[in-house]
Amino acid sequence: MIDRLPTVKKLMRHLQQVPFLASKNMYRVTSYFLQLDDERIEQFCRALKEAKARVVLCQACFVWQEQNEQCSFCFDKSRDSSIICVVETWHELLVIERTEAFRGLYHVLGGVISPLEGVGPKDLKIEELVARVTSGVVELVFAMNQTPEGEATVAFIARKLHGKTVKVSCLAKGIPIGSNLEFVDRLTVGKALADRKLF
Amino acid sequence: MIDRLPTVKKLMRHLQQVPFLASKNMYRVTSYFLQLDDERIEQFCRALKEAKARVVLCQACFVWQEQNEQCSFCFDKSRDSSIICVVETWHELLVIERTEAFRGLYHVLGGVISPLEGVGPKDLKIEELVARVTSGVVELVFAMNQTPEGEATVAFIARKLHGKTVKVSCLAKGIPIGSNLEFVDRLTVGKALADRKLF
Repeated sequence: MIDRLPTVKKLMRHLQQVPFLASKNMYRVTSYFLQLDDERIEQFCRALKEAKARVVLCQACFVWQEQNEQCSFCFDKSRDSSIICVVETWHELLVIERTEAFRGLYHVLGGVISPLEGVGPKDLKIEELVARVTSGVVELVFAMNQTPEGEATVAFIARKLHGKTVKVSCLAKGIPIGSNLEFVDRLTVGKALADRKLF
Repeated sequence: MIDRLPTVKKLMRHLQQVPFLASKNMYRVTSYFLQLDDERIEQFCRALKEAKARVVLCQACFVWQEQNEQCSFCFDKSRDSSIICVVETWHELLVIERTEAFRGLYHVLGGVISPLEGVGPKDLKIEELVARVTSGVVELVFAMNQTPEGEATVAFIARKLHGKTVKVSCLAKGIPIGSNLEFVDRLTVGKALADRKLF
């Protein structure tokens, strides 16, 4: 069926590359665009190009910011510059910000070290992070996703920090709030037991 | 955070309207686009506008087809024009086609009757369907999603067909193949019992 619609196929080839538009979603997204009127498509393309043109990375923390504006984190005097939260990507930063439990600065690595996917330390903002750890920085909080690659990346960076007097911490592992023990995996329950806290 | 990035917010307002880009996905899709280079964004916008300009609906079955080409269903002599499968949208058509179990024609209604969402019979291709049911059409197979609106729509159309000698059928309801009875809901198991087939 799709083979008979070469222009739709071409549009889908573009949409297929967007992460998290799995094949089923992709059909729905394609339909959505085909049903829009020309004016709306024009607006969408304009918004896309505008965002692409005007949004740049802060050259200190690598968080997106509007061009010609100061980074909303690095230049925010109300934030504590002695503590830096290290995240893989922008999404994790948004998750941390949503908690309203962190008032320090951020550092976006841009991913994790993953030899299988051809991502080495040079592809991430690791050197830039190490350079940021000056005497004013007291703690680095690693808020990585719980993957082997995430842990390996933390270990790698910790080694690089050798000789610097900075505390390195990670998010606590344990039972998610509101969850039923029955449905939590064995490893997590074991970890939560080992890390139990006095009431 | 997002408030500090007006152009990203504008792009997101467009992406938010795309069905099945739930809020979490939307951030990832936005990041994806921001990381593309200008050339790729240009290509994407071109593919989008091209698809929009060149893809039209077949005026008999309301399936998308390339402009200036014959409908790949209606004009396919190898397909059985005496049986029409009625679907809500293009996605369900793709699902049916993938089974390779249907060689008749299609009719895309464009949705289901849903007073709550302001969709009435006039908004769907119901009159066009009734008009298609001429003496050559022996059976209409309704392949609707299993919702009250879907069933009501079938009932509405069946009434409209009064006086025409056409068989009206629906997809069988029952236990999905490969599934464990334990995890199938009570209504479905009850229906499967009532509709049991002799071995």
